[in-house]
Amino acid sequence: MLTSKTENIHTSEGETAPLWTVYEDSFDPTLKKLHSQETVYTIGNGYFCTRGTFEEGYPRADTATLLYGVFDQVPIAKEELANIPDWTEIKLFVNDERFRLDRGTILDYHRSLDLTQGLLSRSVSWESPNGVRISINSQRFASLADEHVGIIRFSITVDSTPDDQPAEILIRSSFNTAQGNYNLMHVETVDQAHTDDLLWLHTETKRSLVQLAQTMSFTSDRTDFRKEILDSDISPSIRLYGSLKPGESLTTEKVVVMYTSRDGTDDVIRTALEHHRALLSADNVSQSYNGQFLFESLLTTQREAWAHFWQEADILVEGDDKAQVGLRYSLYQLRINTSSHDTRYSIAAKGLTGFGYRGHVFHDTEIFMLPFFTYVLPDIARNLLLYRYHLLPAARKKAASNGYEGAQYPWESTLSGDETTPPSIIHPETGELIPVLNGFIELHITSSIAHATWEYWRVSGDDDFLQEYGAEVLLSTAQYWASRVEKNPERTEYEITNVIGPDEWHEHVNNNAYTNYMARNNIQCALQALDWLKTNSPTKARQLVQQLNLTDERLAYWQDIIEHIRIPQNPETGLFEQFEGFFDLPKLDQSKFEGRKDSYQGILGVEVVQRYQIVKQADVLMLLTVLEREFDLKTKEVNWDYYYPITDHAYGSSLTPALHVILASQLGRTADVVKLFLAGALVDLENLRGNTPEGVHAACAGAVWQAAILGIAGLRVDEHGYTTNPHWPDGWKRLAFSFKHKGEAIHVDLHR
Amino acid sequence: MLTSKTENIHTSEGETAPLWTVYEDSFDPTLKKLHSQETVYTIGNGYFCTRGTFEEGYPRADTATLLYGVFDQVPIAKEELANIPDWTEIKLFVNDERFRLDRGTILDYHRSLDLTQGLLSRSVSWESPNGVRISINSQRFASLADEHVGIIRFSITVDSTPDDQPAEILIRSSFNTAQGNYNLMHVETVDQAHTDDLLWLHTETKRSLVQLAQTMSFTSDRTDFRKEILDSDISPSIRLYGSLKPGESLTTEKVVVMYTSRDGTDDVIRTALEHHRALLSADNVSQSYNGQFLFESLLTTQREAWAHFWQEADILVEGDDKAQVGLRYSLYQLRINTSSHDTRYSIAAKGLTGFGYRGHVFHDTEIFMLPFFTYVLPDIARNLLLYRYHLLPAARKKAASNGYEGAQYPWESTLSGDETTPPSIIHPETGELIPVLNGFIELHITSSIAHATWEYWRVSGDDDFLQEYGAEVLLSTAQYWASRVEKNPERTEYEITNVIGPDEWHEHVNNNAYTNYMARNNIQCALQALDWLKTNSPTKARQLVQQLNLTDERLAYWQDIIEHIRIPQNPETGLFEQFEGFFDLPKLDQSKFEGRKDSYQGILGVEVVQRYQIVKQADVLMLLTVLEREFDLKTKEVNWDYYYPITDHAYGSSLTPALHVILASQLGRTADVVKLFLAGALVDLENLRGNTPEGVHAACAGAVWQAAILGIAGLRVDEHGYTTNPHWPDGWKRLAFSFKHKGEAIHVDLHR
Repeated sequence: MLTSKTENIHTSEGETAPLWTVYEDSFDPTLKKLHSQETVYTIGNGYFCTRGTFEEGYPRADTATLLYGVFDQVPIAKEELANIPDWTEIKLFVNDERFRLDRGTILDYHRSLDLTQGLLSRSVSWESPNGVRISINSQRFASLADEHVGIIRFSITVDSTPDDQPAEILIRSSFNTAQGNYNLMHVETVDQAHTDDLLWLHTETKRSLVQLAQTMSFTSDRTDFRKEILDSDISPSIRLYGSLKPGESLTTEKVVVMYTSRDGTDDVIRTALEHHRALLSADNVSQSYNGQFLFESLLTTQREAWAHFWQEADILVEGDDKAQVGLRYSLYQLRINTSSHDTRYSIAAKGLTGFGYRGHVFHDTEIFMLPFFTYVLPDIARNLLLYRYHLLPAARKKAASNGYEGAQYPWESTLSGDETTPPSIIHPETGELIPVLNGFIELHITSSIAHATWEYWRVSGDDDFLQEYGAEVLLSTAQYWASRVEKNPERTEYEITNVIGPDEWHEHVNNNAYTNYMARNNIQCALQALDWLKTNSPTKARQLVQQLNLTDERLAYWQDIIEHIRIPQNPETGLFEQFEGFFDLPKLDQSKFEGRKDSYQGILGVEVVQRYQIVKQADVLMLLTVLEREFDLKTKEVNWDYYYPITDHAYGSSLTPALHVILASQLGRTADVVKLFLAGALVDLENLRGNTPEGVHAACAGAVWQAAILGIAGLRVDEHGYTTNPHWPDGWKRLAFSFKHKGEAIHVDLHR
Repeated sequence: MLTSKTENIHTSEGETAPLWTVYEDSFDPTLKKLHSQETVYTIGNGYFCTRGTFEEGYPRADTATLLYGVFDQVPIAKEELANIPDWTEIKLFVNDERFRLDRGTILDYHRSLDLTQGLLSRSVSWESPNGVRISINSQRFASLADEHVGIIRFSITVDSTPDDQPAEILIRSSFNTAQGNYNLMHVETVDQAHTDDLLWLHTETKRSLVQLAQTMSFTSDRTDFRKEILDSDISPSIRLYGSLKPGESLTTEKVVVMYTSRDGTDDVIRTALEHHRALLSADNVSQSYNGQFLFESLLTTQREAWAHFWQEADILVEGDDKAQVGLRYSLYQLRINTSSHDTRYSIAAKGLTGFGYRGHVFHDTEIFMLPFFTYVLPDIARNLLLYRYHLLPAARKKAASNGYEGAQYPWESTLSGDETTPPSIIHPETGELIPVLNGFIELHITSSIAHATWEYWRVSGDDDFLQEYGAEVLLSTAQYWASRVEKNPERTEYEITNVIGPDEWHEHVNNNAYTNYMARNNIQCALQALDWLKTNSPTKARQLVQQLNLTDERLAYWQDIIEHIRIPQNPETGLFEQFEGFFDLPKLDQSKFEGRKDSYQGILGVEVVQRYQIVKQADVLMLLTVLEREFDLKTKEVNWDYYYPITDHAYGSSLTPALHVILASQLGRTADVVKLFLAGALVDLENLRGNTPEGVHAACAGAVWQAAILGIAGLRVDEHGYTTNPHWPDGWKRLAFSFKHKGEAIHVDLHR
């Protein structure tokens, strides 16, 4: 699965912080590679992310800046994060020749993403078709200290000209509104103009009517360059022009401030302009002829903000450099794709890094990513759970529309909590329509949310949250399950029929072990929360009992479900059957498919794959991981031995390789651990799944954290404290990390 | 159906050529009205059309320029005409205030489309929010004499300023690449720059990779205005600025030249620049400080070209001004949407005037529009039929893929002839997917093409065409029908089962009268063509007999089909049954639906409407119209009396109201004639169907010509000559028109 050469990871000695850097030293113009690297070199701060496209542009680049929670409607898939006007565009002309990587000659090329400060740098040495040689240095970041701000420092040096004469330089910095999500345009200009040296652009999303302001200043360090503001509704620009002798340089700075009507401001343009002016008038900016230089001062606060994050979140690995960089890159992704304060949206499957899954939120957040936040950044974990709390009315509506009580969460959601799973998708090649059932029958997201709520409370000790929000989520979701289970008169047990479990290759199954077990767990946690409330906040308990009509009779029924829900498990061996009838299916002879380049579903088709014991992603094994405290080692072992070999680790799902590390560590499968860990940690850095162009695998990033901490370090917390139980993979010598338990910061430093 | 006030038609006396003018004298900012009028005020020349959006733009305008045959791929619907960068944009700022109709005060507003010269004019008097009063005059046309050229003359007069001081004027003329078809972007910039005073933009379509060049010059009549060229990949512009005292004026001219790689040039930019320079260096252009003024000289050739068209195509109606203007407007639409020379594409359902039906070609062309070209512009009719000839390989492939012989034409087609009917469409409100069966089982387009081929030959006498192209089309399509008919052993007749007839509200029907009769006609014409060939071009006859394997046995089988194909008609009364079992359905009580605002299908749903004798559009009556020579008056009458009352004239289809005029005239239904004629002639001018925003009803325009000439004038031609048989509607006093018969131009002037 892993290529022999590890791209994007720089591990040679003698460089600055090599284990904090993602880098490339050649430009590969094939579109798949280009689009993959655009994703990898994304910068962001949780308010926005900007893909790593080049300032000068490249044909068919997937340029994108996506804002946390800024959606617009689309056909079939309901709504998607709207790609806003590109703020990074800087076009350079040297003696009227356009600087572009697809013409002339690239003499030298380096690009690196410094994770310590969220700084993307590029240096290029280029010879134009007419023989002018120039060097370009650009650096950009999305300010983590001031989330409305993006900045680019762009420098050019004329190295030589054929006639040794000065070169005419024209450099044009723009907002480019001609953007779409895969060509579908979402924003339209409302107004545009400039005020003094600040250029501003007011756009709005076409259907959801979110107002967006972007302001720009563009300054240089040379007094002999002229500057002009070029108003335009489509591509407003500031241009600088002058000439540079061989050996001379020009450094420019592009500062951009962004606000939307989601920020609670009436006048987005005024707010953005004021913010921008405040930046320019700060005491510590250096002055120059053409305006103020902000880069260094903004980078200082940027560095501080990232240092603060790394102080809390970093995991030090000694002995495996690839694992070290991949792990840090995963943490970087978790941070840049998550707002520090917004409670009305959550982390999308691809975060803000690409158009895949359209910015929709799945249970990926609760099962894969939330543990990182719960243990490391509990304030953000709380926000992410508040998002689900705010969706309760919509979840109740969904349950009711299906004839059930309580709250049923949508498989995919955006701002409103309406189900946003598309009813079908269009096959990218054949144009065929493929029905998508997940929105209808993949139910377990509801218990995932309950589980994450419970875990957050257990680890953080945030009683206030449980009382005000969490308990209502737990009880409402339990209520859903209690109305969803069926009692077949011919059987003694409660059942849940016609679902899709985590292994999405088997549809319309009955009594999926994961779904049923997690539903039971959901009801159990709800009852425990109610007991806790009755003791600690009787008023709130009474209120919820009344509001949700939790009669004694009903609670007794819940208890009966807990005791009598069907769990398909062999009581002697402990082996779970993934769903009823799974063991009756033939196993797939995987040896026949060696060298395949697609998933078994892709090869066999949606219908045929259902007829085999072949699993897309951890299903029973996910149950044993998520609720790992409930199972003994023998049960884990017997199920691992059964399910691990029949899972499509290579092409099934990116979600679970890293998650498997937790069980693999406990069971001492060291060789598997190394392989599975890197399959997660490098999924995007090496585009292992081939779909990094559509955005990073955010859930995988969360799973990588879990793999390191809950798997390899073996961290466990209970009400009394924590324990570790390291299972060292080959090569690993040291593992140091921090987390919070009930508000207390704890640092752990494990040595082999 | 008709509103009492007739919009867009100016019939008051004393004006210049009122019966040649479409006009409006107020600006209605509601989007539906705005988008409808954008369609109405489209200019074009068969190479391109540009919708009637305003130079300064309006939020959510459906700006579009579509080029004949320039497509790009889309999901589901295969491909669509690609909206190219807008060439009309001219932004005006007065004292930094933007001229826009949605701010300030409109003091006066007129817009008119002069059909005699294809000239769109607008005059606006406007007071800015700060109290500056200006007058704007703009005129634009797409040159019919030089199809690569579009031109706008844009003038501004400062009427007054609050302080009586001069006003600062900035006027910016751009290409705007931020365009899409309903927001789906199709073009991307390849390169952009300027050469001397000519700005150029090189774009390409994203998937089909059509290369497009657009060049621009922008000049003014004032020596005191400065001019600057602003390069940009997204919105390249030329701007002029200076000041105007109250009472002073500025006149500008924007000239644009467009070429694509479909024009057979290797270097589209060079070709466009050379073309543009040739315009500027022509002897007859007037010189001014800022460049050459071309408008008057280009307008002269424009007027000549349109005069030439009208000389051949105009129909004079005295006594009904609405009918007169609507008729001329229909002829204008037929002309601007049709290339004068391209044989690789045909007229789309909405021409080049909007995004509806995505530029796909239906049998609308052959049944509704082609008669106009056959009788009036036979050279173009020949091109349109050559398009079908070029699609023969694709049509043979479609037949073969369905298990049949010969050539089966696709229900919808673009350049390649592949079936482009979408397999399903997305409901615009619910997002639901609705299967579309037409591409699979609406078969009669194949016989429509054969019929149009035959009619073209019959009227034009173009023997060369029949010999080289037409005969092969006739024989190949006949071959399809001969393999498509089935012989049920229980019956003595040939049948065609499981089709959709012209009445698309009834699917999966057997022995649709129209389909079967037209199939028979197709085979008959093919056999006659073969006989003609054997006499007039034995070599070609032999070649086709060999190529298509037309053995005597096979030809005898064709004859047997002609004699024994099932035609569901009562031999005594002459009444056709639309399809087998139609008479068994209950009739729909239409009185229950009075005041409805939707079609019966829209109200009842796709499934329910099938269960009633309610007809979307002429089906049996279309048969009696298209092959009208084959039926006597009694047959026409009995079928009219049966089917006319059960057809949804108001909301069923725009195609047939005007077509019904032919039968209604013959049968002396004068009141119906007037109503039906205007329902066709005003369909877009009054947006009678509510969907004019998506483009004009091109087929309806063709039907209006047929209604006037084949219906009201009663023109019939045979090999010996022509006859007329006028049926005067109320009010009509005179009807004069021209047509060609076997190459001879004939002018007819009928007086009541």
